[in-house]
Amino acid sequence: MPNFKLTIEYDGRNFSGWQIQTNDKRTIQGEIKKALERITKTTVTVVGAGRTDSGVHAAGQVAHATLCSRLDCDTLLRALNANLPDDIAILKIQKVSARFHAQYLAKSKIYRYTILNREARCAKKRGFYYHVPKALDIALMKDESKILLGRHNFLAFTASDAWSKKHHVEKNTVRTIKRILFAKRNGFLTIDIEANGFLYKMVRNIMGTLIEIGTGKIKKGTLKTILLSKARRNAGPTAPAQGLCLLKVKY
Amino acid sequence: MPNFKLTIEYDGRNFSGWQIQTNDKRTIQGEIKKALERITKTTVTVVGAGRTDSGVHAAGQVAHATLCSRLDCDTLLRALNANLPDDIAILKIQKVSARFHAQYLAKSKIYRYTILNREARCAKKRGFYYHVPKALDIALMKDESKILLGRHNFLAFTASDAWSKKHHVEKNTVRTIKRILFAKRNGFLTIDIEANGFLYKMVRNIMGTLIEIGTGKIKKGTLKTILLSKARRNAGPTAPAQGLCLLKVKY
Repeated sequence: MPNFKLTIEYDGRNFSGWQIQTNDKRTIQGEIKKALERITKTTVTVVGAGRTDSGVHAAGQVAHATLCSRLDCDTLLRALNANLPDDIAILKIQKVSARFHAQYLAKSKIYRYTILNREARCAKKRGFYYHVPKALDIALMKDESKILLGRHNFLAFTASDAWSKKHHVEKNTVRTIKRILFAKRNGFLTIDIEANGFLYKMVRNIMGTLIEIGTGKIKKGTLKTILLSKARRNAGPTAPAQGLCLLKVKY
Repeated sequence: MPNFKLTIEYDGRNFSGWQIQTNDKRTIQGEIKKALERITKTTVTVVGAGRTDSGVHAAGQVAHATLCSRLDCDTLLRALNANLPDDIAILKIQKVSARFHAQYLAKSKIYRYTILNREARCAKKRGFYYHVPKALDIALMKDESKILLGRHNFLAFTASDAWSKKHHVEKNTVRTIKRILFAKRNGFLTIDIEANGFLYKMVRNIMGTLIEIGTGKIKKGTLKTILLSKARRNAGPTAPAQGLCLLKVKY
């Protein structure tokens, strides 16, 4: 059976995140599974590169699915988009080797956090940014963020998720941040963060902390202390989901 | 009474256009008037640079309003945005001379038409583009569009509006197109068109015609004939409102 790699974009606002849940909540994985099952008339398993939380968007989520189907990629792309709600778009479908695994083979992921840093809101992009009208010292945020680059234990920036709690799993909380890029355009500040992997709520907790550094609520030079403390209570609040977008998964 | 110039952005999807109507339909002008009346507790007249049709967006619509209010621009901006629905955003408020008139003093307007020219749709920008999955000969569209530059009678590209019909008004249909700019990025083709003014549905009729030139349905070299014919029936269809955005008004 051919294995397909899907590149997926979605507007996360009306989803309870990527992952299928035992309840009947609307999820991206669930909608894609349903659509593929309608097309192939078989049971399908869709494996994503990683979960995204409720309300989080994606411009380049990746998943794989082994399908009992002779459809070529172009036909499958059209059929799948036609069978999906319009807040999900399949951007690309490629045939890949049976060994391709969207989760295990991911080398790194890039998340983008979007802040609208001006007084006036934006009507067109509503739901896709976090509005911070207060002045932000972006140069300081950028400078402080360098502390996070490299291999660290990011325990201070994670909330242990329900699954780990339930199963009493002590997770490995060491990750490597490869890059943090700041860009500002028309009042929108975007912060792209690339790592070999992310802990639960890690990006949003880092962003909440960086924003408080930018407003001056967290003092200059404190980020290193927070990181080394390995204590969630020392970091800033969790920035809202609507500002977050899974930009790219690298293999 | 101070005169204020407002720069306005809106998501046109859930509006019956800019202009207040005699029925109870939701309009941008109507919402802004209501909000300003709530803030100033007086009757307010809002004058826009021009009407936009139902479903058409704006990134830089301009309006003026003379207000019986001592509020400074920053306070008014915050108050107005707080009193408006989130599909309208007031981007900027400036105090202007009593002589400033948003409609009569406009020197030119720039409209942008956005076409998504690839197989896959886009979830995030849905409602803000016209999806043309077919191949488009953009070089040809660009080349042909040069015919439209300058001062012409654009009768072939206008539908006479209800008001003119009702009042049997013979309108001046000569306009000057100053610039047409093509850009393509990530599958999105944008066409910016600047003129000293636009006739009713002129941009959308020009776009519908250019798209048919791009797909080959209208033959190369025909655009000049269509323009000179001054007959609407010779031009292409009216491109959908969702692709259109009033980008800027120049004074």
